[in-house]
Amino acid sequence: MENVMRTMEMIRPLDEGAMAEARARQDILTKPQGSLGRLEELSIQLAGIQGKPIPQIRHKAIITMAGDHGVIAEGVSAFPQEVTAQMVHNFLRGGAGISVIARRVGARIIVADMGVATKLGDDPQLLSRKIAPGTRNMANGPAMSQAEAVKAIETGIEIVTTEVARGLDIVGTGDMGIGNTTASSAICAVLTGEPVSKVTGRGTGIADKQLTHKVAVINRALAVNYPDPKQPLDVLAKVGGFEIGGLVGVMLAAAAHRIPVVIDGFISGAAAIIATGLVPGLKDYLIAAHVSAEAGHQLLLRHLGLKPLLDLGMRLGEGTGAALGIFLVEVAAGVLAEMSTFAEAGVSEGDEAGS
Amino acid sequence: MENVMRTMEMIRPLDEGAMAEARARQDILTKPQGSLGRLEELSIQLAGIQGKPIPQIRHKAIITMAGDHGVIAEGVSAFPQEVTAQMVHNFLRGGAGISVIARRVGARIIVADMGVATKLGDDPQLLSRKIAPGTRNMANGPAMSQAEAVKAIETGIEIVTTEVARGLDIVGTGDMGIGNTTASSAICAVLTGEPVSKVTGRGTGIADKQLTHKVAVINRALAVNYPDPKQPLDVLAKVGGFEIGGLVGVMLAAAAHRIPVVIDGFISGAAAIIATGLVPGLKDYLIAAHVSAEAGHQLLLRHLGLKPLLDLGMRLGEGTGAALGIFLVEVAAGVLAEMSTFAEAGVSEGDEAGS
Repeated sequence: MENVMRTMEMIRPLDEGAMAEARARQDILTKPQGSLGRLEELSIQLAGIQGKPIPQIRHKAIITMAGDHGVIAEGVSAFPQEVTAQMVHNFLRGGAGISVIARRVGARIIVADMGVATKLGDDPQLLSRKIAPGTRNMANGPAMSQAEAVKAIETGIEIVTTEVARGLDIVGTGDMGIGNTTASSAICAVLTGEPVSKVTGRGTGIADKQLTHKVAVINRALAVNYPDPKQPLDVLAKVGGFEIGGLVGVMLAAAAHRIPVVIDGFISGAAAIIATGLVPGLKDYLIAAHVSAEAGHQLLLRHLGLKPLLDLGMRLGEGTGAALGIFLVEVAAGVLAEMSTFAEAGVSEGDEAGS
Repeated sequence: MENVMRTMEMIRPLDEGAMAEARARQDILTKPQGSLGRLEELSIQLAGIQGKPIPQIRHKAIITMAGDHGVIAEGVSAFPQEVTAQMVHNFLRGGAGISVIARRVGARIIVADMGVATKLGDDPQLLSRKIAPGTRNMANGPAMSQAEAVKAIETGIEIVTTEVARGLDIVGTGDMGIGNTTASSAICAVLTGEPVSKVTGRGTGIADKQLTHKVAVINRALAVNYPDPKQPLDVLAKVGGFEIGGLVGVMLAAAAHRIPVVIDGFISGAAAIIATGLVPGLKDYLIAAHVSAEAGHQLLLRHLGLKPLLDLGMRLGEGTGAALGIFLVEVAAGVLAEMSTFAEAGVSEGDEAGS
């Protein structure tokens, strides 16, 4: 827990001076002021995060964390548990959605086994950090112990610390875990105060009847465990998942190192609401890549106070949305760094310039 | 006009067989069906356009066309006319917004002088295709002759034909022209039947009073010229612009060569509504990159029946939105081509697979 506390204390407000300089520079670049919309805003946020008037994005990584969920014994998913491990192999072989998209974006992928039920073979590309072979069934009791929850967060912190040493200017979060929309909906319901039915969706694609059942299972888990909304760690332990805890650690450590975090969809959002519950100021380090098609994600983003960059009806997870978001952030940084100013280009300014 | 007619006749419906094959492949890739949302839809559209079950995007280009507008004599813009030429130089030197974004996307930029008022120097990178040094003031009479309108379209066709010979798998449209939101609003009002006030915005950033004046100027142009909404060429000639006509030609020629066209913002939208007025089937070859912050663009896209990929509050033009859209299309093609199938990856399928 000491490492977690130390990391939390390292998180500082954004650098207002760097943001003011970035804003001033945006206003003298050869375009009508504000005409690059959210790209301009992103570049200014990035300046505040990195503490540099002209932020740079060179080293990009997606951290995709995998874990299994005991709650799938209740029949809440359209896919069998073995798929979590199979997809981890698919990530490592480069055949998954995130593999393809991260390649296009030029981001390296770090795949971590945070708690996959199946024993995974030795692969030098896989970070074996299994807390346990899947969580326990939260419908009957806590998904994990408090100690396991802390260990999951510490593991996320450790992974980011290692990546920082390799060079890291931006990180995207990703997840894989059959059953993890169930855990995420539970977290979301507790920490937003919304009814379970409003924040529970079809995950990988369940039908109406199974969705009703999923809502009932989550309500049972909340009644059995009674997680305390004022204690995010308690919520993580009782109804969370190992990959979700790991992503909380990723977010904390990235913010502590002044690295922007591009969050993916619903599962990353659940991790974000825990992480910002621990350190509210962390929010300024987060960039919401997209609003997923999963019910409840829009509401979750509103609670987080984050405006998504993309709305493409995606709901795959793995970090696929985050990878697209990283591309947009990189473009935003490029605009600020590489566009000519009116003076440099000898372009006349408009009436509104300087206003 | 013969070349225009021949190009129009070459435009064929999308290849349904290739689309069906692409759709079937999307459903066996290692992800819940439909979970990549619009990326899946894009890949299927692309298959239909290219006529290949697994479409490829290697050669990417943005065609940015510049032209000046006589109507700026009426005081409709926040920037002086000289900025059009200055920005063309900025494109050629690589300091403009489109320069930066196209570099990130790996798209080449083709800059064409379709009718800039200022004499531009010789630059081997600039396509000098000046129809005339700016259009005439449409508030007093037609912006150009019918012959000039046809020549602008033919020029767009010729430019695409040359680019196809160099290798072209996707093209984005871009524009530069002080005063061209005024022309575009006029086109949009005539061809959508909407009142001028609903489709007229602030362009580069005019204030309320100037906006009211801009609407009045456009209404005068429509009253003076009386463009015929049933004749898109008549509309282009009377209230259009040389760069807009050029973009119409780009769209026609790209569709004729089965090349997807990623359209940028409001000005490209105005060109698209003329182009689809000439050949309704052209619509299937268009991909709307984004909805711009310019008033009227959303309405214009609705009339075109196109759903934008991005909504980032951008309103710069130049092809900046189109370049971002090209990136998403390329990712979509990559997903379809490079992701593993369930069988290849040894991943179990879910309940809904095959449904």
